[in-house]
Amino acid sequence: ADADPKESPAQQVIGHYGLPLTGAETRYYTNHTLSYDQVNRTPRWVAEHLSNTKLRGQADRKHCRFKPDPTIAEAFTAHNNDYLGSGWSRGHMAPAGDNKASTQSMAETFYLSNIVPQNYENNAGFWNRLEMYCRDLTKKFEDVWVVSGPLVLPEVGENGKKTVSYQVIGKGNVAVPTHLFKVILARKGPSSDTLALGAFVVPNQPIGFDHSLMEYQVSLSDLERMSGLSFFPKVDPAMTLGNLCELDSCHLMDFKEFTLYLTGRKVGSSRSLEKLEKFMAELKEMGIPPDDYLLKLYQQKKDELAQKERPDGKMEK
Amino acid sequence: ADADPKESPAQQVIGHYGLPLTGAETRYYTNHTLSYDQVNRTPRWVAEHLSNTKLRGQADRKHCRFKPDPTIAEAFTAHNNDYLGSGWSRGHMAPAGDNKASTQSMAETFYLSNIVPQNYENNAGFWNRLEMYCRDLTKKFEDVWVVSGPLVLPEVGENGKKTVSYQVIGKGNVAVPTHLFKVILARKGPSSDTLALGAFVVPNQPIGFDHSLMEYQVSLSDLERMSGLSFFPKVDPAMTLGNLCELDSCHLMDFKEFTLYLTGRKVGSSRSLEKLEKFMAELKEMGIPPDDYLLKLYQQKKDELAQKERPDGKMEK
Ligand SMILES: [Mg+2]
Ligand SMILES: [Mg+2]
Repeated sequence: ADADPKESPAQQVIGHYGLPLTGAETRYYTNHTLSYDQVNRTPRWVAEHLSNTKLRGQADRKHCRFKPDPTIAEAFTAHNNDYLGSGWSRGHMAPAGDNKASTQSMAETFYLSNIVPQNYENNAGFWNRLEMYCRDLTKKFEDVWVVSGPLVLPEVGENGKKTVSYQVIGKGNVAVPTHLFKVILARKGPSSDTLALGAFVVPNQPIGFDHSLMEYQVSLSDLERMSGLSFFPKVDPAMTLGNLCELDSCHLMDFKEFTLYLTGRKVGSSRSLEKLEKFMAELKEMGIPPDDYLLKLYQQKKDELAQKERPDGKMEK
Repeated sequence: ADADPKESPAQQVIGHYGLPLTGAETRYYTNHTLSYDQVNRTPRWVAEHLSNTKLRGQADRKHCRFKPDPTIAEAFTAHNNDYLGSGWSRGHMAPAGDNKASTQSMAETFYLSNIVPQNYENNAGFWNRLEMYCRDLTKKFEDVWVVSGPLVLPEVGENGKKTVSYQVIGKGNVAVPTHLFKVILARKGPSSDTLALGAFVVPNQPIGFDHSLMEYQVSLSDLERMSGLSFFPKVDPAMTLGNLCELDSCHLMDFKEFTLYLTGRKVGSSRSLEKLEKFMAELKEMGIPPDDYLLKLYQQKKDELAQKERPDGKMEK
């Protein structure tokens, strides 16, 4: 009754007790979709759509917890324990920061089906700045599609032999990718006949401010060969696909911009006047003058904390 | 119009230009089905059904050629050149020898979608004997289902770190598996309420006659964790799943049986009386007396070749 109509009688016999399930089918979440890898206990790819309006909101990651995806069978899911003490961070593929519009969709990005073992510095640094660049694109492009995922790439040894080698962590043998990819497709508006495309392959290791995003750009067909995936299969071949890094800058925040941004986040979540002043002092020590945005934020927070601290008997001078 | 009915409006926007294609869907051939791995350029799994009647026939592998599967996109297929000179043989997952009933189905087993880089000695030896064991099972079981495929398994290093490491060959980076698996499900008849199941994980290296098949038996759930696959998902939980190696022998041909078998094949395809006598002499040198089957085959072939060689002026003595 539920035989595949493509199946001949001989093929139906082969599938009598069911054909093996790979679990690679597309899984749908509130604001992202993904294909899961049951061997590696990570996603194969995670797809999102960003827009200026969808990025607004107040959902806060402090209410979110990493947890096994309830839709993944126990035999194939990663667990927090696989990551803890492994030396690898839990790296989002669909970033929490793309989901400020919804507590539910943000919580779903903390499912381990959306997570790969990622170098801490890469996660907090270069990859974080790449994610911010994607969000920034929504100021210039009405629609931004992003697909992210892990890769394990071969290295050529001295003897010319090519070897793929990667660590697996925890009881679940969660695969630590050697690289991460991100494909960005941006469209000015629904009537545009040009799409801007950029494909990037980033090593899963610390990457400093001396490296530009463009160093990691690859052709889409090269990424397809590396990942085994076909991206954006419904793009009309009549559309012009421009190079994102020519149509836009592919400029990630530099050290100064990034430090101002991080200080802004710290200032915004300061819980005492003492901490607040400490963050501003650290900035000064680095020789980075606060910009207008930070100064305004600082003043707001200072007033707010002063109000709070007064009733406890602390002096506001 | 062709949006997935599961997709919410937000999810449809994510998939506007198509979600990434993994190519992991089931592919149907005349006498086998498989899921292809577009990263590794090998199958993930290949499923077959064997029965006594289906194994009969005269299809001959000498008419078959290894070739790229015409249904796999050029970017993702393996090529013969990836294998040639690599030091690895082209190992069938659905064996050619299971397809004597049809030239077409045998030819399809030579598509590289059914092939993995396999150690030569393993391919010609232990794995070959395992395939013969599967065919032999059809004498005792009316239906035999077999699923075969490659694995890349981690090794634990001195520091306790687990690493997956495997070679990739050729321009296509075809992945050389560290291990191969085979799952066998056998049923005496349609009304049986017991199924016999055996799951095996065999290292992709030479394995001699001093090793038994049972050394490589694993539980199905362990294999599922290693492979990321769920096998025979439609088996009714009310069925009893017995251990194949208890219900049957899991006995592979020993050295003597295997040598007699190989000599039989050589004798059967001899093209001259001289060669024929050479094969029989080699057997004698090994101290293995021919069995009745081989003696009969030898006599037949001898008569046949004598007939052929006479008109060329060669003497029959
Ligand atoms: Mg992150
Ligand atoms: Mg073989």
